[in-house]
Amino acid sequence: MIDTHKGGDFRDWMAGIQARTETALAEVLPEATIAPARLHSAMRYAVLGGGKRVRPLLAHAAGELAGADARHLDRVACAVELIHAYSLVHDDLPCMDDDVLRRGKPTVHVEYDEATALLAGDALQTLAFQTLADNIPGLEPAVRVEMLAQLALASGSRGMAGGQAIDLASVGVQLTREELEFMHVHKTGALIRAAVLLGARAGGRLSAADLGRLDHYGKVIGLLFQVVDDILDAEADTATLGKTAGKDADNDKPTYVSLLGRTEARRLAEDMLADAQRTLAPFGTGAGRLSQLADYIVHRAF
Amino acid sequence: MIDTHKGGDFRDWMAGIQARTETALAEVLPEATIAPARLHSAMRYAVLGGGKRVRPLLAHAAGELAGADARHLDRVACAVELIHAYSLVHDDLPCMDDDVLRRGKPTVHVEYDEATALLAGDALQTLAFQTLADNIPGLEPAVRVEMLAQLALASGSRGMAGGQAIDLASVGVQLTREELEFMHVHKTGALIRAAVLLGARAGGRLSAADLGRLDHYGKVIGLLFQVVDDILDAEADTATLGKTAGKDADNDKPTYVSLLGRTEARRLAEDMLADAQRTLAPFGTGAGRLSQLADYIVHRAF
Repeated sequence: MIDTHKGGDFRDWMAGIQARTETALAEVLPEATIAPARLHSAMRYAVLGGGKRVRPLLAHAAGELAGADARHLDRVACAVELIHAYSLVHDDLPCMDDDVLRRGKPTVHVEYDEATALLAGDALQTLAFQTLADNIPGLEPAVRVEMLAQLALASGSRGMAGGQAIDLASVGVQLTREELEFMHVHKTGALIRAAVLLGARAGGRLSAADLGRLDHYGKVIGLLFQVVDDILDAEADTATLGKTAGKDADNDKPTYVSLLGRTEARRLAEDMLADAQRTLAPFGTGAGRLSQLADYIVHRAF
Repeated sequence: MIDTHKGGDFRDWMAGIQARTETALAEVLPEATIAPARLHSAMRYAVLGGGKRVRPLLAHAAGELAGADARHLDRVACAVELIHAYSLVHDDLPCMDDDVLRRGKPTVHVEYDEATALLAGDALQTLAFQTLADNIPGLEPAVRVEMLAQLALASGSRGMAGGQAIDLASVGVQLTREELEFMHVHKTGALIRAAVLLGARAGGRLSAADLGRLDHYGKVIGLLFQVVDDILDAEADTATLGKTAGKDADNDKPTYVSLLGRTEARRLAEDMLADAQRTLAPFGTGAGRLSQLADYIVHRAF
């Protein structure tokens, strides 16, 4: 669609959003010196200094298209990233995936302890909602409350948490492609989709039809992200991945790779990428960052 | 303050609020037939059919004083009760209090499994925020978003979750009365205080001074509730309590009883009750239900 996506311009933009998201998160999170210090320290450990910040990148890219204030997008980015971070902390717990490595560091329950990890995850979820509920100068209460409803729907039992429950129930089970898609639409897709839509809603520029197009883009990207994750998990080693590689196969979890094979999974990823790009076409160059992000999500893998 | 609190009128009112809260919660919670069914079943198991609904009672009592619409108060009651329920599910997990009995039934992780209990708690927290974020006809977005901010503050790392972290850190530690109070102001107090304030905010009738008075009442009641809980835990047997009795002593946790002795703890409860009643005096008979609830919270114990 545009030909700058291999250039340094996109990398610079990405680095800029990642840096301002890090700053915004560090400000939103309570200092580790405030009581209870161990809990606050664990919360900061779980969130800061790592991660590709895919959801913040998507929120900013969609928000730029919608003419949103970058400071408003920082708050949206924090809210979605805090939900993501809480889900990782809980997902890594012994009663869930029992993982010891995340973003190249010991997981929270390994570095602290299980009870602290549980509470840190709980408090990160709360903080996500607080970040949008607290006053944001220039962003109307009516918009914020709508964002809160959308974020809650994407995160809860009919979104991300529900997807994790389906994931748990599917260990050792042979899923159809439709069932696998249903799981991922919830587990990973819902929050990625929410990141795009919340970013777009922070601006006032888009019509209902445009929001519908972005919602389709978000849905495709959410699934695409998981397909690529499955390919990465099957191919990469632990050092490159920064988390335990091959754990899906070890845990006997169904993946796009186990279901379709690597070649077909890659073809699926390319098809979905083309779908995402077609969906963005009517926006023209305004959707350049969203287009580049779609490329990036696929080509980080192969 | 008023002399009806021993009569059937208060018991009828309480039963009425408990019944409408049960109905409202059953409506807000996804049906157990909706996928993921096991997660939704666990969420309903954790919330429905038990509990004294102290927080909903306080929200309704404060809301009546403020002239709030009872249907708005149902939503406030659901939000605070869902936060309370999520905290119980996570508090009972093996890595926390490791308790097997709650409200006379097996705890969620015993009845289901640990991973489901973790996710059910997570999703109940999300649902609490969704309950206030979703459209509530007649309740302005600006009011709802303020309620959301207040509920998040009361629930997170500087409120309830923070109090639980302090509680964890205090096992086997000799606390001063000030430190014990600091813990309970967060662990139990913050959400009870929020129940009172959110109920009051659902109405439009109160001045800042009146809200300040109610906030003091909520703070006192929150602590009072804990003092009485400690007395109950030390005195009652498991059957009466509906949860494992004597577990604070078994867990070597500091309590008002272990710190002050039973006689002094009872005296403290009576003093706090008198403080609460004095605080309500300027409202006259309008605060009758709040006054009766304060009495009830103390005298359920002795």
